[in-house]
Amino acid sequence: MIIDCHGHYTTAPAALGEYREKQKAELAKDPQHQAIKGIIDISDDQLRESVEGAQLKLQRERGTDLTIFSPRASWMGHHIGNASTSQAWSEHCNDLIYRLTQLYPSNFVGAAQLPQSPGAGIETSVAELERCVNQLGFVGCNLNPDPTGGFFTGPELGDRYWYPLYEKMCELQVPAMIHVSGACNTPYFQTTGSYYLSADTIAFMQMMTSQLFRDFPDLKFIIPHGGGAVPYHWGRFRGLADMLKLPPLDECVMNNVYFDTCVYHQPGVDLLLDVIPVDNVLFASEMVGAVRGIDSETGHYFDDTKRYIDGNRALSDEERYKVFEGNARRVFARLSERLG
Amino acid sequence: MIIDCHGHYTTAPAALGEYREKQKAELAKDPQHQAIKGIIDISDDQLRESVEGAQLKLQRERGTDLTIFSPRASWMGHHIGNASTSQAWSEHCNDLIYRLTQLYPSNFVGAAQLPQSPGAGIETSVAELERCVNQLGFVGCNLNPDPTGGFFTGPELGDRYWYPLYEKMCELQVPAMIHVSGACNTPYFQTTGSYYLSADTIAFMQMMTSQLFRDFPDLKFIIPHGGGAVPYHWGRFRGLADMLKLPPLDECVMNNVYFDTCVYHQPGVDLLLDVIPVDNVLFASEMVGAVRGIDSETGHYFDDTKRYIDGNRALSDEERYKVFEGNARRVFARLSERLG
Repeated sequence: MIIDCHGHYTTAPAALGEYREKQKAELAKDPQHQAIKGIIDISDDQLRESVEGAQLKLQRERGTDLTIFSPRASWMGHHIGNASTSQAWSEHCNDLIYRLTQLYPSNFVGAAQLPQSPGAGIETSVAELERCVNQLGFVGCNLNPDPTGGFFTGPELGDRYWYPLYEKMCELQVPAMIHVSGACNTPYFQTTGSYYLSADTIAFMQMMTSQLFRDFPDLKFIIPHGGGAVPYHWGRFRGLADMLKLPPLDECVMNNVYFDTCVYHQPGVDLLLDVIPVDNVLFASEMVGAVRGIDSETGHYFDDTKRYIDGNRALSDEERYKVFEGNARRVFARLSERLG
Repeated sequence: MIIDCHGHYTTAPAALGEYREKQKAELAKDPQHQAIKGIIDISDDQLRESVEGAQLKLQRERGTDLTIFSPRASWMGHHIGNASTSQAWSEHCNDLIYRLTQLYPSNFVGAAQLPQSPGAGIETSVAELERCVNQLGFVGCNLNPDPTGGFFTGPELGDRYWYPLYEKMCELQVPAMIHVSGACNTPYFQTTGSYYLSADTIAFMQMMTSQLFRDFPDLKFIIPHGGGAVPYHWGRFRGLADMLKLPPLDECVMNNVYFDTCVYHQPGVDLLLDVIPVDNVLFASEMVGAVRGIDSETGHYFDDTKRYIDGNRALSDEERYKVFEGNARRVFARLSERLG
């Protein structure tokens, strides 16, 4: 079985975008506008149509089985509006994911968008995580380490601000993927290139230099996009642990942190698998996502990352099983329970 | 000959730090305090002592010859004070580099710190570049793409704000290394890990998505720390060029952009040399810099990057010459003139 731990619902029917535009129009009139959730009218047929020719088609073509599926990351937009904006929007986005997991239970398992909002408390995120896991059957969530959308002025991941969420994650046995949303300060940042990769790298360093995993030894984070810059600079990070008088990385972060395989060429995936312990690597493609084209050098989709895992010459069969399935079962404990 | 294109004067005598502390004390009393350059009393013997046991010792031990030497990057602190603060400070830092290049003309060649300041014009940087190149014999400069020290609110590198500096760089035939300074928003950022690597990645994406190299076909930038996350994600960046309907990377950036080899382990350097055209890679160590310890896995200094170039099995002798010397001569045209 091949589990893709990082897929976003980037192909939602137009009604979802129209709801968001209506939210923005209300906020333009009144930034303190208190959002009411309301209804988004999308039929099951529309949901089916939105994924049949996209994520499901690609699953079939590439030979992957199950995607841990979350709302479109670049649309989370936590910096937009106020806490009520984010709550109504996140609940809708999660509800759509839930409906897809009901329509395609063997293809999709849910991961939640959290209703974060800069300056607001974390308790609405805790409540939404609880709803998604206990009522909607989700097995993980996406945590945005920079809900400001590119200004990095909020609390870092080691800050006690996040602790109620971490407590709930541990209680529910769900991991979080660290994932920022669309950058609002363009062209300084380009969302899927510089902003995503920077946030991944920043998150790892915050985890390294914090008390986090001493306080929450069971907490689990996935850093997407192959861990940002971290594996490529693994020597630098090992050296910085030494310079900063921290324990070695294996002790201070690698019992709790996992990297996905969203690295879109063979040499990058080979490096990831070479330097990072195989128990810390989870298969993922991010499809349909940041890069949708075909690599003229290979004739295959850039984001068909299964090819790079298959193409790696150093992995044993057992190690390949871990990357494709075993590690995901271990990190997503609730998924493993469900699959048996 | 082995040219290290990225070395900082991180070992200056205490008087330099004391001058900076005095600047800060004056600013604490009056943020608009207009700095006067004044004098820093450091003797030639003190200068010699500060590098004999450090950079020069390491050059000898490692078998490198010439370092393109610039002031300590994490101390540039462009976000501190106002334009006059930055100007007085930068001039002193550059003057010390000049004196070292006079004391050790076969070991050090200068690269300038620019007196940038958030919100201020770029003309003082243009003037200081001109002074450093024409009067002090420097061959390059460091350009800080985020003088705010971690908030990313200034103009991006494609903005016309920078154009007078780019014009001067082209006129003087000097390249710039893209290099941020110490992050002021800690612990959100850790300077030498997450902040440096993020800024490198951000700079590359800004260059990709701007008109920069169409407007300045002769402009040359070095992105340090192995290009941040870029080579590891080379497939993503190639795919993003395609998604964003840009020319291929070879056309839109790689005639103007170079990566250094400050990647502190063999697999990282191997990936860099594998995916990036060899004409775009310049040898560098960043010593004495971010990571000063010995790698327990190899028994050698993390930042002894010459070992990784020597250890790479794919380079031909001609390619290795390019990385160690030939490319630096091409990028630093004034250095090449001087060396003959």
